[in-house]
Amino acid sequence: MKIDLRSDTFTTPTPGMLEAMFKAPVGDDVFGEDPSVNKLEQMTADIFGMEAGLFCVSGTMANQVAIKTHTQPGNEVICDKLSHVYIYEAGGIAFNSGCQVKPIDGNLGRITAEQVEEAINPIDIHKAKSTLVSLENTANRGGGSCYNFIDIQNIKAVCSKYNLSLHLDGARLYNALVHKNETPKQYGEIFNSISVCLSKGLGAPVGSILLGTKEYIKQARQIRKIFGGGLRQAGYLAAAGIYAIENHVDKLKEDHEHAKQITAALRKKDFIGTIIPVETNIIIFEVKGRFTPKALVEHLQKKDIHCLPISPTQVRMVTHLNIKPEMVNKIIQIIDLI
Amino acid sequence: MKIDLRSDTFTTPTPGMLEAMFKAPVGDDVFGEDPSVNKLEQMTADIFGMEAGLFCVSGTMANQVAIKTHTQPGNEVICDKLSHVYIYEAGGIAFNSGCQVKPIDGNLGRITAEQVEEAINPIDIHKAKSTLVSLENTANRGGGSCYNFIDIQNIKAVCSKYNLSLHLDGARLYNALVHKNETPKQYGEIFNSISVCLSKGLGAPVGSILLGTKEYIKQARQIRKIFGGGLRQAGYLAAAGIYAIENHVDKLKEDHEHAKQITAALRKKDFIGTIIPVETNIIIFEVKGRFTPKALVEHLQKKDIHCLPISPTQVRMVTHLNIKPEMVNKIIQIIDLI
Amino acid sequence: MKIDLRSDTFTTPTPGMLEAMFKAPVGDDVFGEDPSVNKLEQMTADIFGMEAGLFCVSGTMANQVAIKTHTQPGNEVICDKLSHVYIYEAGGIAFNSGCQVKPIDGNLGRITAEQVEEAINPIDIHKAKSTLVSLENTANRGGGSCYNFIDIQNIKAVCSKYNLSLHLDGARLYNALVHKNETPKQYGEIFNSISVCLSKGLGAPVGSILLGTKEYIKQARQIRKIFGGGLRQAGYLAAAGIYAIENHVDKLKEDHEHAKQITAALRKKDFIGTIIPVETNIIIFEVKGRFTPKALVEHLQKKDIHCLPISPTQVRMVTHLNIKPEMVNKIIQIIDLI
Amino acid sequence: MKIDLRSDTFTTPTPGMLEAMFKAPVGDDVFGEDPSVNKLEQMTADIFGMEAGLFCVSGTMANQVAIKTHTQPGNEVICDKLSHVYIYEAGGIAFNSGCQVKPIDGNLGRITAEQVEEAINPIDIHKAKSTLVSLENTANRGGGSCYNFIDIQNIKAVCSKYNLSLHLDGARLYNALVHKNETPKQYGEIFNSISVCLSKGLGAPVGSILLGTKEYIKQARQIRKIFGGGLRQAGYLAAAGIYAIENHVDKLKEDHEHAKQITAALRKKDFIGTIIPVETNIIIFEVKGRFTPKALVEHLQKKDIHCLPISPTQVRMVTHLNIKPEMVNKIIQIIDLI
Repeated sequence: MKIDLRSDTFTTPTPGMLEAMFKAPVGDDVFGEDPSVNKLEQMTADIFGMEAGLFCVSGTMANQVAIKTHTQPGNEVICDKLSHVYIYEAGGIAFNSGCQVKPIDGNLGRITAEQVEEAINPIDIHKAKSTLVSLENTANRGGGSCYNFIDIQNIKAVCSKYNLSLHLDGARLYNALVHKNETPKQYGEIFNSISVCLSKGLGAPVGSILLGTKEYIKQARQIRKIFGGGLRQAGYLAAAGIYAIENHVDKLKEDHEHAKQITAALRKKDFIGTIIPVETNIIIFEVKGRFTPKALVEHLQKKDIHCLPISPTQVRMVTHLNIKPEMVNKIIQIIDLI
Repeated sequence: MKIDLRSDTFTTPTPGMLEAMFKAPVGDDVFGEDPSVNKLEQMTADIFGMEAGLFCVSGTMANQVAIKTHTQPGNEVICDKLSHVYIYEAGGIAFNSGCQVKPIDGNLGRITAEQVEEAINPIDIHKAKSTLVSLENTANRGGGSCYNFIDIQNIKAVCSKYNLSLHLDGARLYNALVHKNETPKQYGEIFNSISVCLSKGLGAPVGSILLGTKEYIKQARQIRKIFGGGLRQAGYLAAAGIYAIENHVDKLKEDHEHAKQITAALRKKDFIGTIIPVETNIIIFEVKGRFTPKALVEHLQKKDIHCLPISPTQVRMVTHLNIKPEMVNKIIQIIDLI
Repeated sequence: MKIDLRSDTFTTPTPGMLEAMFKAPVGDDVFGEDPSVNKLEQMTADIFGMEAGLFCVSGTMANQVAIKTHTQPGNEVICDKLSHVYIYEAGGIAFNSGCQVKPIDGNLGRITAEQVEEAINPIDIHKAKSTLVSLENTANRGGGSCYNFIDIQNIKAVCSKYNLSLHLDGARLYNALVHKNETPKQYGEIFNSISVCLSKGLGAPVGSILLGTKEYIKQARQIRKIFGGGLRQAGYLAAAGIYAIENHVDKLKEDHEHAKQITAALRKKDFIGTIIPVETNIIIFEVKGRFTPKALVEHLQKKDIHCLPISPTQVRMVTHLNIKPEMVNKIIQIIDLI
Repeated sequence: MKIDLRSDTFTTPTPGMLEAMFKAPVGDDVFGEDPSVNKLEQMTADIFGMEAGLFCVSGTMANQVAIKTHTQPGNEVICDKLSHVYIYEAGGIAFNSGCQVKPIDGNLGRITAEQVEEAINPIDIHKAKSTLVSLENTANRGGGSCYNFIDIQNIKAVCSKYNLSLHLDGARLYNALVHKNETPKQYGEIFNSISVCLSKGLGAPVGSILLGTKEYIKQARQIRKIFGGGLRQAGYLAAAGIYAIENHVDKLKEDHEHAKQITAALRKKDFIGTIIPVETNIIIFEVKGRFTPKALVEHLQKKDIHCLPISPTQVRMVTHLNIKPEMVNKIIQIIDLI
């Protein structure tokens, strides 16, 4: 029984999802004729109360298309220094958009309205023009931390004051919604664009949806085409996304519960240092004393439990749809015995 | 019975392909762990006698990644003025690679060694550095025209002399191989990179393979990631590609035969002008006299035959896997009656 | 007595110009405090009836800043295939603006309204968006050819119809104005932006002015800063430009007369083939028979007459402020004796 | 008597420099024929013991050309978060080079080898490739702070270990050399490229020199051309640079002394908070209590002493060649009386 805690991107479809994919009506999406893609795009837009959606083959593509559509070359993008768009998208903001990043030293991947306001450049010919703020919720490198909604509202107020756009990297937004008991429409009202990932906690094999106004998504569709991100019969993938949204949102609570159970087991061990507070499905912890991160990961691997060293001192475990209660029990047993 | 001749991108999977897709073993391809993707990449590389392959979600992405990997910003790319990479990829060569195009006025989308040599810029600080030649075989806007292999060999000799890379947009390369009775390995020996499309004549729903050396594909994989083209469980799509290569290559002859039969019917009509010589599965013809292109397309559409006006005077029909002999008969009957 | 016909960029300042430079009031132009730069920018704008001007250190910079300010990455720029912006600016349109060029096969560097209209891409997700037309007057590689003003007006009408911007590369615009007896204000009324070179026929050592609306020039100033084109005490150069405009425009007639005289001498020779019609100060001619271009250039060089081979069959001679009547006589004598 | 402490870029040429400028031999530098430019480039290279030099019209252009020549799009550049290349070059690193910046939280604009090593990304497809470290000496926003040479040597060792290039923004390098009693050749041995500004403390009106290997400068020359930074008769400006290097280096000590004297006067005032330690010619101090920065700047302006508010709490004064001892006395008197 392989237990893969390296990432929630490792999920494989359930039998129900696979059947939905298999039966999906498809067409040529470059011509706008794939009914499953069209359904997924409109359905997601409706859920978030936004005008339009665009299916992208990855969260990175959704974010990169989003940022390019908001900005001009030479602009500056404000985000937390741990943001996925800044540290895990291969320098894409500079490569694809010609934009500079002003990384903020936030709190577990979350930034504040005050920090945003301070980071906005004055109008000055020496300065890159600040045009976009990008938030991430939950924040992956912040240990799956969630924003308090009031903080997002305050950031929005600053953006409105200075005429900046506000993008949300919602790779794990549904985890935040479930944890904070918030609704998609709250987010749709505030953000100019949102990328929602279908292939992490929600369990679809591939894909993210980018949401925005009709005009924005029309421009984004052109950018996606330039990247080569326009697919033909994408409906097989879209059908998995539809199934995921309809069936897997409620199961995220269970993932969060599993993460807390594993954390409790970790907390008892002498070789575990600081554990970033666990709010959702991500556990990031320091390894010290009798183990190095690498040694611990290798030890667990021998028991067929897979997790990732993500820095010289830290290891990450992520719970997801394919991590069943019996697996959690086994993980805890094994940790207890180390 | 809808007959869709607009493009060979409109094919939908056969039952056999669909079954192969949904039995495919999958994994996280960003981590290199999707067995179906790995199999498709290696298998295609082997067929062409090249070192490595990279699965891309579209022919445009495969071409754009290829061009970026070969070039530096400020370089010049030489290709026919009708090349897909120049006129149908949304300005991607400039956007993604920062490169300028020197379009050649070729013969039905094909260029010669002499034209390439003349187009290469001298070393001069005022001039963009010529670093890449891109060919397309078959040439879509040339009516599916095929190169004679000797012409490709001559172009290669010029590229070698001036130290330019040579890329092949093989969106419909298998059509050329079948028509000219050539082998993939002949092409693998000559080109520095080849994109092979799986979703046109071969009938897979999505995808292209980019081929090159191991080092080249390693760099290309990084560029694909920057575009957001790295997928998770891409094996469902890759499995369709494997099936297509194993089962659909031989059927292309039939598509070519169908195209010839439809062309013969068109040739008899007074409202049909010049027909670009039909070598493979694409028919491009002028419409004149009692029909405009738009009017003819609309007339046929009422009979549920769909084709595309591609210029103010021309219409395109494309045969493919989903165009069955009985459909061809119906098309001919309807043309005869106009 | 060295006679340099290689380009009109080789002029060195007259004593009067040098004195004007020497006495120029200067300041820090990045702070907008250089009085000579400010005077030159406003004076030129006034002459052309445009709102604002921007001093640039080269015609290439003025053109590149202009094009970037008009366009977005992924756009397409329409110009003659011999345009300086396309063939002599080192691939800058792609490098700096991320834009693709659609080169037109014009007549001696000049294009028509019909050609422009045909070159504009339809709105289609596969196509780069056409947003800018760039003309060059006189056209360098067209042998200093001049547009008829009505042709420019017709092109403007097409641009207005399709909402494209219209830029003029006026590297040698004053030569055209003098030859055609036109006024700067005619051009200022039509073009969205004009680059006017001060260091070619006008004889300043360095510099071009970019003209446009106040808002446009404000944006252009930011782009110039990004390229590092913002200077400190640029007034020494600007003063030369002021002097050139005030004193050297009328002398261009003489350059044109000189070019005609030299052309008459060339026409008599058996080794001279086609001479592009000479309208202004550029003579481009074929060399054949007993001379190759290289051999002819070397032969003249021994007599201290310097000119440029510009293609495998052509040589270019350019008259300018530093080419005096006695030099023209000497050139003619030497040609007569070959 | 206007006293301009806003920047050392505000210097205007001395009579000797002006004379050198207007007697300068000049030529067309795009053709490599300007003797004054050639002399300045070679002379500076020799002084630093480097192979070749390139005259640029600004420090920003020299830095931007340098960074582009070292990097590929998608790379990451490591520098202090206060670096000029990051915060005062209008987002040029992303615009011109397509590169991302990893800003380091250094000490007064200076970073350490340990910080650099920690900032280098591991080889990972999600990560931008780290390829360049850029230092600034003196550090403008660090109050003209100087590196200890051993710290630079340690950074070089890290760069060598990880195969990164090392660039020096030497906008005020001569101030550091004079203060630390170092030689240009020490720097030439360590850095892959150095930009040396001529128009700040050295007092030339315009220009910077970029230094590197012959091959590097050859490539840089092409990039400069793409930006439009190739000038024609640039010798007038280059001659000022030659004069500056030959005559003004020794005078920098006086500027540093002046800065210390003014600082002593400031230190006595109750409305002056933290003053960044003054090592060279830049004084950055907090304003508090009975003055805001803006109010203090306006108060001094009425006495014809000009300085710059550079943040909501800070004011900057810069001494330079045009600030004479009698001006320093006047400044101190006026400060004493506030």
